[in-house]
Amino acid sequence: MDLKVYLEEKKSIIDKALDDILNPPKIMPVKIHEAMRYSVFAGGKRLRPILCITACEAVGSSFEKALPVACALELIHTYSLIHDDLPAMDDDDLRRGKPTNHIAFGEAIAILAGDALLTYAFEIISQFGLKTQEKDAVFQVGQEIAQAAGTMGMIGGQVVDILSENKKIDAKTLEYIHNHKTGALIKASVRAGAILGKGNSEQIKHLTHYAENLGLAFQITDDLLDIFGDEKKIGKPVGSDDKNQKATFPSIFGIEKSREMAREAVIKAEAALEIFNEEAEPLRLLAKYLLFREN
Amino acid sequence: MDLKVYLEEKKSIIDKALDDILNPPKIMPVKIHEAMRYSVFAGGKRLRPILCITACEAVGSSFEKALPVACALELIHTYSLIHDDLPAMDDDDLRRGKPTNHIAFGEAIAILAGDALLTYAFEIISQFGLKTQEKDAVFQVGQEIAQAAGTMGMIGGQVVDILSENKKIDAKTLEYIHNHKTGALIKASVRAGAILGKGNSEQIKHLTHYAENLGLAFQITDDLLDIFGDEKKIGKPVGSDDKNQKATFPSIFGIEKSREMAREAVIKAEAALEIFNEEAEPLRLLAKYLLFREN
Repeated sequence: MDLKVYLEEKKSIIDKALDDILNPPKIMPVKIHEAMRYSVFAGGKRLRPILCITACEAVGSSFEKALPVACALELIHTYSLIHDDLPAMDDDDLRRGKPTNHIAFGEAIAILAGDALLTYAFEIISQFGLKTQEKDAVFQVGQEIAQAAGTMGMIGGQVVDILSENKKIDAKTLEYIHNHKTGALIKASVRAGAILGKGNSEQIKHLTHYAENLGLAFQITDDLLDIFGDEKKIGKPVGSDDKNQKATFPSIFGIEKSREMAREAVIKAEAALEIFNEEAEPLRLLAKYLLFREN
Repeated sequence: MDLKVYLEEKKSIIDKALDDILNPPKIMPVKIHEAMRYSVFAGGKRLRPILCITACEAVGSSFEKALPVACALELIHTYSLIHDDLPAMDDDDLRRGKPTNHIAFGEAIAILAGDALLTYAFEIISQFGLKTQEKDAVFQVGQEIAQAAGTMGMIGGQVVDILSENKKIDAKTLEYIHNHKTGALIKASVRAGAILGKGNSEQIKHLTHYAENLGLAFQITDDLLDIFGDEKKIGKPVGSDDKNQKATFPSIFGIEKSREMAREAVIKAEAALEIFNEEAEPLRLLAKYLLFREN
């Protein structure tokens, strides 16, 4: 199978679904809906929703069972980017080659657009719960996503990241930051798809292991792209981590060791999929692809 | 019955439940848990959770059925106050006589503490859904709360409020702002309690009407307290709305007409409770109490 074609296809399904739930911003107050759409449609890769629906298919279900939750995951991811970019946080002006939300709409609206995307994510999950027969699966997924997005996950990672700025940190703190800031929501995305697709506990365990390693590989390659990437492709200046004195895998482990760690994580991710047949082929290819991605 | 005793009793039940779910902040990262507790325990009246559990009792159920959701409502209310106070929003240094969250913890942590409280609210609702048999009631309540907190509710009101600053606004816009910024979550609180208590559609309809009028009375008296209140009791300087050039009921309708509107709203709120017997007595007294409150 051709991963690129597969990803394009899934991305367009997700983009269509996101477009449906974020109606054209004609509803009062227009400005906040514009700001929400602006960041959701600013060119994201849709990694989390793709992982979610692909994991759902990997356990033998159809992607529709996970689509609303997949969209909710992208809204949460987008909210986190908007808030991360704020002047009080990373103070970034550019994201994916475009002005960040607060540059385009002002700080107040950017904060509220993030709040609104987070809130809307849980509205969508509740709405979906009302429609489906699998009530407990939706509650479990809702709980796991909230945990992964909260202080024991993404927000916790961001807090430690902020408190560590301009400080020398050790490998353990770096791993804490990335496990929480990026890893937790990636893991929740894969698990959500598997749970909604009614995967058995063995399948869910293996997919969880896959997701943990994939998240690690994703973060290391992200750090490497910040050094070696093509500015046009990554949509921001290279070297920004260094400029912001962010601790990264290359800065702690060195470049060669970081590459080695990413390769190892991908091998472990692939190994975790051994119990699956071809239905997990997209997940296998995705893991490999992460090593060679350009953005 | 003595409303003051009743409110004290309910407040202590809610405070205890909030204390349980916001464990002492020993868990890493400590700072964010400290910041969350700081604002949740900064002396709020617990109006929304009290309305929620009292509405649950008014339809003949026991308050425990609504307690987790009541706590979630207070977390959402607290998040909204933290974000409202931010420099990019109302830029307030004091709230209930104490430094606001961003003054005490810095802007980045304040933004994240708000995000975390909002996220945690939905974690609690999902967790509760897993435990209860009334799955659809919890999904409905989750959806209504998310809607009331989102762009069609609280955030929408805040957006219009911010976009209206230093502008002359009309009565319609003022009503839009308050219906959405304050009214929507108050309505959702009452409805949530009634739905979780398995109230019938007639009861829910009347309680909704009650809540709409109560929310209006609450907002008008809030505006009046900003002019005539005792700084020590309201915990912030009087006249701050005027200083911030906020449109208020007295500034648009005048003081006498505003008082009249608040009285009328309370009468309508009481009338909406006519179908209930003594189980709705606390709600009746609460409505009257709002007219004479001092903070």
